[in-house]
Amino acid sequence: MSKVSEEIIQESAQVRLDNYLRTVAHLGHVEISVTKFEESLSFYREIMGLEVTEIDGDRAYLRAWQDYDHHTLVLKAANVSEVNRVGWRVATKESLELFETQLTKMNIEFSWIDGGSKKALGDAIHFTSPSGIPIELYWEKELFVTDDPKLKSPLPSHPSKYPARGVSPRRFDHVNFMVDDVQKEQQWWTELLGIHHRYFVQNKEDIRLGSWLSRTNIAHEIAFMRNGNQNGGIFHHLAYYLDSPDELLRAANIMAENGIKIEWGPGKHGTSGAQFIYVFEPSGHRVEIWTGGILMFAPDWKPIEWPAGVGELGLEMWGSKPPESYFTYGTKLGK
Amino acid sequence: MSKVSEEIIQESAQVRLDNYLRTVAHLGHVEISVTKFEESLSFYREIMGLEVTEIDGDRAYLRAWQDYDHHTLVLKAANVSEVNRVGWRVATKESLELFETQLTKMNIEFSWIDGGSKKALGDAIHFTSPSGIPIELYWEKELFVTDDPKLKSPLPSHPSKYPARGVSPRRFDHVNFMVDDVQKEQQWWTELLGIHHRYFVQNKEDIRLGSWLSRTNIAHEIAFMRNGNQNGGIFHHLAYYLDSPDELLRAANIMAENGIKIEWGPGKHGTSGAQFIYVFEPSGHRVEIWTGGILMFAPDWKPIEWPAGVGELGLEMWGSKPPESYFTYGTKLGK
Amino acid sequence: MSKVSEEIIQESAQVRLDNYLRTVAHLGHVEISVTKFEESLSFYREIMGLEVTEIDGDRAYLRAWQDYDHHTLVLKAANVSEVNRVGWRVATKESLELFETQLTKMNIEFSWIDGGSKKALGDAIHFTSPSGIPIELYWEKELFVTDDPKLKSPLPSHPSKYPARGVSPRRFDHVNFMVDDVQKEQQWWTELLGIHHRYFVQNKEDIRLGSWLSRTNIAHEIAFMRNGNQNGGIFHHLAYYLDSPDELLRAANIMAENGIKIEWGPGKHGTSGAQFIYVFEPSGHRVEIWTGGILMFAPDWKPIEWPAGVGELGLEMWGSKPPESYFTYGTKLGK
Amino acid sequence: MSKVSEEIIQESAQVRLDNYLRTVAHLGHVEISVTKFEESLSFYREIMGLEVTEIDGDRAYLRAWQDYDHHTLVLKAANVSEVNRVGWRVATKESLELFETQLTKMNIEFSWIDGGSKKALGDAIHFTSPSGIPIELYWEKELFVTDDPKLKSPLPSHPSKYPARGVSPRRFDHVNFMVDDVQKEQQWWTELLGIHHRYFVQNKEDIRLGSWLSRTNIAHEIAFMRNGNQNGGIFHHLAYYLDSPDELLRAANIMAENGIKIEWGPGKHGTSGAQFIYVFEPSGHRVEIWTGGILMFAPDWKPIEWPAGVGELGLEMWGSKPPESYFTYGTKLGK
Repeated sequence: MSKVSEEIIQESAQVRLDNYLRTVAHLGHVEISVTKFEESLSFYREIMGLEVTEIDGDRAYLRAWQDYDHHTLVLKAANVSEVNRVGWRVATKESLELFETQLTKMNIEFSWIDGGSKKALGDAIHFTSPSGIPIELYWEKELFVTDDPKLKSPLPSHPSKYPARGVSPRRFDHVNFMVDDVQKEQQWWTELLGIHHRYFVQNKEDIRLGSWLSRTNIAHEIAFMRNGNQNGGIFHHLAYYLDSPDELLRAANIMAENGIKIEWGPGKHGTSGAQFIYVFEPSGHRVEIWTGGILMFAPDWKPIEWPAGVGELGLEMWGSKPPESYFTYGTKLGK
Repeated sequence: MSKVSEEIIQESAQVRLDNYLRTVAHLGHVEISVTKFEESLSFYREIMGLEVTEIDGDRAYLRAWQDYDHHTLVLKAANVSEVNRVGWRVATKESLELFETQLTKMNIEFSWIDGGSKKALGDAIHFTSPSGIPIELYWEKELFVTDDPKLKSPLPSHPSKYPARGVSPRRFDHVNFMVDDVQKEQQWWTELLGIHHRYFVQNKEDIRLGSWLSRTNIAHEIAFMRNGNQNGGIFHHLAYYLDSPDELLRAANIMAENGIKIEWGPGKHGTSGAQFIYVFEPSGHRVEIWTGGILMFAPDWKPIEWPAGVGELGLEMWGSKPPESYFTYGTKLGK
Repeated sequence: MSKVSEEIIQESAQVRLDNYLRTVAHLGHVEISVTKFEESLSFYREIMGLEVTEIDGDRAYLRAWQDYDHHTLVLKAANVSEVNRVGWRVATKESLELFETQLTKMNIEFSWIDGGSKKALGDAIHFTSPSGIPIELYWEKELFVTDDPKLKSPLPSHPSKYPARGVSPRRFDHVNFMVDDVQKEQQWWTELLGIHHRYFVQNKEDIRLGSWLSRTNIAHEIAFMRNGNQNGGIFHHLAYYLDSPDELLRAANIMAENGIKIEWGPGKHGTSGAQFIYVFEPSGHRVEIWTGGILMFAPDWKPIEWPAGVGELGLEMWGSKPPESYFTYGTKLGK
Repeated sequence: MSKVSEEIIQESAQVRLDNYLRTVAHLGHVEISVTKFEESLSFYREIMGLEVTEIDGDRAYLRAWQDYDHHTLVLKAANVSEVNRVGWRVATKESLELFETQLTKMNIEFSWIDGGSKKALGDAIHFTSPSGIPIELYWEKELFVTDDPKLKSPLPSHPSKYPARGVSPRRFDHVNFMVDDVQKEQQWWTELLGIHHRYFVQNKEDIRLGSWLSRTNIAHEIAFMRNGNQNGGIFHHLAYYLDSPDELLRAANIMAENGIKIEWGPGKHGTSGAQFIYVFEPSGHRVEIWTGGILMFAPDWKPIEWPAGVGELGLEMWGSKPPESYFTYGTKLGK
């Protein structure tokens, strides 16, 4: 083999390796601004049953009992309810620099955030998606560790006790956004961030109504749905995961007993097998509580198409219809 | 004490005793005509997972795995789908004759059916309620007994094995009718048959929208809802009982997988705590599958009023709305 | 008919009527002494999720969220952990006097307790069973009513909100005692108090190992099991009821997370279909948390016999074995 | 940079890339020999509720309803019950050749199996682990596709309908082996096959009692437990996954109703959060049915150590003890 062709192969190895390294590992957290800080905090703590790791000034850091990290949800007191940042852990410690190179190459504006300037977080890169979704990539984040006997579990596999307070979901699961052009947004995330396209819904005009993506084996860590108003990107919901259908109906009971409006559900998305309820927290963000869902293991997963003919089953397979708000309402994207 | 006053007291003892004896014990079965006998039979056997005790000519006799009786559901091949008979077991073997006396006194037309002329049933009295609901009172009914190894359970408390086929409800639960005047119908059943009034819903004009009744400790064995069309009595649904919310959602999955339309649900009636789905079987009868619900033990139970202000929570406490059909559609009352 | 024979019939009517009136309606509450009042109170409130209606001096009054009464459990601070009283509501307001007559006739010692001398309770009769179980019969007991927004449910059918704290059982269910002679004890309760015999277990020598009884349609409100030590009556456990198998396993998780020893379970009694765990509360009383179970509607219910050959399935149908303590340990009977 | 140092870097890129490519993607199937072919087939089909894709001569190919592949379980009629092959899908189509190179380098004996010579499978490499576990690596395997109306789901995300027959697990989950030296076996699998080490149990003498591994985000796809007899590798169990705790107890009911011995459970492994029952199928293989469990997302997951002090909680967190057979019995490893 000539020197040149060998170099080309080698170069190709480097490129391919970089592609493996320049990817996210999993969704890490979401930061939201809330207009009613105390009420929202009380909702997430008492009704949802999340644990508050700490409150620092105008920010509260929360996690579900099985979340290993310091936090998976940040609430920030503010004058507008919007999503500030969606945090993704990258695959390796080399990944951030490879992303820097790639973002530069693609002329995407970004900024470095120094480790320590954000609570529990190492160095991070900030940038926004084509639809304006604020992204944060990081490698380091503190794990949650406690010696508080009220929180510490006798089981080494539990970062903290099952709280048995309110809904008590197991873990943070995913985020969902409405955008004007679902297909374009999905392709950008898949190509730049390596988040696999899992399934999608087309309407009769063959326009993409929704796409669901994940880097891990769960059905989706992020989803994009077509904004019915076609007026730009909005935050549709954040989601926490429950262990069983029984716990889902128990969650619905808790909402009813405490006067929290269930926008839709209990229902089941035929696409993912997700059994869900959607509620509005006091500051106006939509929260999904769900269970079930398909795990996806194939390394060459082919996105499942839900054509128009079965789209309603995909949306809800038991026969209920979402309210109009489900297709149009969301909170804003922060800058 | 004078002879006379003593006799009056004694007479009163007899009257009071008769009142104790002249009452039903529990709902026993429902007989329905079905226009699509084979399809309905297949639905109840394969999808619902009921057991067929026997098929005799144009009739099939079915039961849930925990039902102790020979049958709790009778299907009859016919040209119209209607309810033929609602069977109630009476409290004692003396009760039937006391009912005969009382019906005569009240000028209510009735007929005796000789024991053995109906499969598995002893002597029975037939008559109809003010709204035309066909009633059957009986004392004797054969229990289900089997030596078939496919059906026989190793557990003496199980009349047959849990079938693990389709929905597999535990037991027959209740029947529900739409009538023009709910209050009048309820009072008649409570006074004549001793079926306690458990809870009721009033509308803004203080008209009775629904009443739920039971002789046993379960929330209801029969219910009356106001016919939205005000065109007489119709059969709203029959109901089988499941052990858990999880099984209810599993039932909804089974319906979706097999193309059975779920009219409404999963939802939860705030009144009784019943978590439900309603489906239509192939011949057009509505079937409820449900779980949960309140047991009522107080011997002086005071019916719970659901006034107009909370009526919607009573109807469905998680926030879903029933389709229009729920308030107007039913199958006919047989003669 | 002659005057005399008519009188005999009339007399018989009075006797039969009295038999209908002289019966209990349902189990109402249990009062226990606890050596560790604060720890037990915390267990029942935080781990079990019962609601404390009030604390008055050395007594705490508790109930499950669906219990309609002022209390179903009374804890009394004391030097010994024992059961003080098992309360049963009688069937009618005439019943108490008929019981007085009958107890006198049977030479059973009893005492009247004036209404109001016990919190929330009307007049009551106290006496003990052959094995020394302290009984309390009453007709009047205050219902639980609240205007506390933290407790009040928007649903009229819920006496208080589902607390979503700890186990949160739905309702008080039953009590269980170990006695030396099960058969004798059972017959006494059935004959005197009208509590139906539902099922029983015999050993190889045809000795009665256990009997389960209820006046209502649930599988048992009181049970007697043979004391393995044959040293008199002891209190085996009190039981609260959960809505689903899923909640039962959730309860087991809560116990494990909080260092509460599960003596036995999750398991399933084949006899009743009860899915259970047994735990010890801090003062040493055994508490059962369970779900499932068979409802019994037949007015002529024939007790189900579990002969020696299937007794193990009756005890536990999934194959686990109880520890020795289950057959011998209990707390004392108060005087 | 000099040519040489650049080449070294390039070489390193190739090596690192190969390491990324030479790994498994996920567990695919297990092939077992069964001495009672018809009884085992009936167990897996009727009691477990798996679907039979096809029967070809002395082999039956089965899958759970959500399994996307042609099969996840192969039964082979034979004179001895043993495990013949554990199939793993590799990460890319280049992976097999990279494995060939690596196996050669490590002097591990292997053989190529031509695509098509095994039903539904492409080219495969066969070799055995240090403890003798027979491994099969492959890239291509046919997906399950059907037009049979009894099997075909209306939902594109379901490769076949939820069968609602017997246990009906969702998907194939993992395999478990007993070996003499757990630590050595684990390290070999992690290093050669890239299967992450997730958690492990040490005894008081700091000997490894068990290790659980997965390439995907589920808690384990393969596990090694210390053989109590120290007489070589044996097959401990294969496992299928259920959606909920409720379904697990339902599975236990089905086993009890059908006379299938439950060796252990319902219980919960504290390590993984797996709620389980273990049963023996007719040919003697142990089958686990389970639900729950922790998903593991961290790309730098540090194996959780369960030291001797909490090992019992790790083994079973609700307090039950496994029978002796659990530590010693298994079926053989095929050659």
